[in-house]
Amino acid sequence: MEADFLHWLREQLPEHRQVLLGPGDDAAVVRLAQSSDLVVTSDLLTDGVDFLLEECGPLRVGRKSLAVNLSDLAAMASRPVAIIVSLALPHTTALATARGFFKGLLPLAEEYDVAIAGGDTNTWEKGLVVSITALGETTAAGALTRSGAQVGDQILVTGDFGGSILGKHLDFEPRVREALLLQERYELHAGIDVSDGLSLDLSRLAASSRCGAAIELDRVPVAQAAEQLSNRAGDKLNPLEHALSDGEDFELIIAAPPAAAEQILADQPLQVPVTMIGEVVEQPGLWQRTSMGQLQWLEARGYEHQ
Amino acid sequence: MEADFLHWLREQLPEHRQVLLGPGDDAAVVRLAQSSDLVVTSDLLTDGVDFLLEECGPLRVGRKSLAVNLSDLAAMASRPVAIIVSLALPHTTALATARGFFKGLLPLAEEYDVAIAGGDTNTWEKGLVVSITALGETTAAGALTRSGAQVGDQILVTGDFGGSILGKHLDFEPRVREALLLQERYELHAGIDVSDGLSLDLSRLAASSRCGAAIELDRVPVAQAAEQLSNRAGDKLNPLEHALSDGEDFELIIAAPPAAAEQILADQPLQVPVTMIGEVVEQPGLWQRTSMGQLQWLEARGYEHQ
Repeated sequence: MEADFLHWLREQLPEHRQVLLGPGDDAAVVRLAQSSDLVVTSDLLTDGVDFLLEECGPLRVGRKSLAVNLSDLAAMASRPVAIIVSLALPHTTALATARGFFKGLLPLAEEYDVAIAGGDTNTWEKGLVVSITALGETTAAGALTRSGAQVGDQILVTGDFGGSILGKHLDFEPRVREALLLQERYELHAGIDVSDGLSLDLSRLAASSRCGAAIELDRVPVAQAAEQLSNRAGDKLNPLEHALSDGEDFELIIAAPPAAAEQILADQPLQVPVTMIGEVVEQPGLWQRTSMGQLQWLEARGYEHQ
Repeated sequence: MEADFLHWLREQLPEHRQVLLGPGDDAAVVRLAQSSDLVVTSDLLTDGVDFLLEECGPLRVGRKSLAVNLSDLAAMASRPVAIIVSLALPHTTALATARGFFKGLLPLAEEYDVAIAGGDTNTWEKGLVVSITALGETTAAGALTRSGAQVGDQILVTGDFGGSILGKHLDFEPRVREALLLQERYELHAGIDVSDGLSLDLSRLAASSRCGAAIELDRVPVAQAAEQLSNRAGDKLNPLEHALSDGEDFELIIAAPPAAAEQILADQPLQVPVTMIGEVVEQPGLWQRTSMGQLQWLEARGYEHQ
């Protein structure tokens, strides 16, 4: 299957100015922008854990597999350049799965000007495994890490949270353009994308920065999907709890000094709303700010990887 | 399992001067040597196809998974810099498998000064899947591709061929130093590493270069392992046939202009012997040169990926 499939795939791939040598040799050669560093991230997704192939089909798996990687590059405020896509395919449906996967992935790759620089496609007797490594480059503003937050920074988020399982987890838009624009125009200290849950990922940003984070719960933008999920028979969380703990929102959390944060909130420079939900505090851990201004311990909840 | 394991793993990883930001953020940041391009390759290995975990154990799987990627970088005559390692682990033995895997991989990474810049580690109910993306950088001599061979070039190989399944396929030394040294000192036109079989990979180099390749069969360096394999009851190939068609020798095939090839053969600058086995010819395809000097069609045989 491999030769035929690769032939088909290469016909789908446009040239990319930064790919000096594309798939077909022992390795690809990619040229980064001058004085850029390489930003590299990788996600491995398996059938039954990260998606259900039978339910959502290979196209949506393809799109999501790229989108989660682009979301990681967005969290670093770096510019996507190319991806390496490797698939372990169930041999009974290998060709159809691979084609569907790339049909889902390629439009998103085109939208974000990302080249497919290589990969490896094998068949085996077990389930679909997707491994994508995404290559980006730093901009003049440098990489936005998790560890730069400072006490007093405002905590900003894009979009809204919760109930992603109802659809957004497959169809979300990675916040690449948003992160690049914010990093270019404003002073940002730290950033992370929300893959495992708003409260959990915020606590990670705080821990990496050796600070704490205090949320004002009434400011958290709760998605309509969180309300819908909460209204379902048997659901035990209220919408805010869904917003704080559901995974796969793929929105950005940004820590910015107060002046920059206020400017961003006033400008609202993105197509998606930016909301202030709290601030970086000295006490390590995750906190809620009560209406009396006190800090109360808040459990960081979300998807813990097994 | 993931947090504990990552903690353990990070303690094993030395600092690397080119890794500005290592594992633990949304992405890693890697600095290439000035005016180098990025060389990137990826191999996906699955239990039951590329290795038998039960038979060879996680250490040898770890070593091999890195070595095959380094062999691809060697084929491009590029300098290894960092790798991204992703594992889908059978959940019943996840921690032991992951630790064993890295215990096998890390000494080879250290030997070749390769940083572990990131990856993704998940568990699931099925077999072990390994995905490694290797990042290298071009040297001043540029990347050595498959497609630069010219009619009249001599075809050189490192080491010997055949019978790799008896052990070399797990314990081979990727020809990184050899490729860098040859590319630095001599004029080379094209290169490939032998992963699927000498005759098959040579035919690929020739096809990429829009030429043919003519082998003088009596010059092919046949490994002792090929003789051993051939002597086994039931084995149907002679040692030369094993040398031409067995996969996973992970030696280099180089096409070099006659003057450079002669110089390499006279100098023998590598710790492993370099042998001339034929020449690049105009007629597309793979050929053997008979003792009468004529070209006779030769079947390109080896491991065809499913």
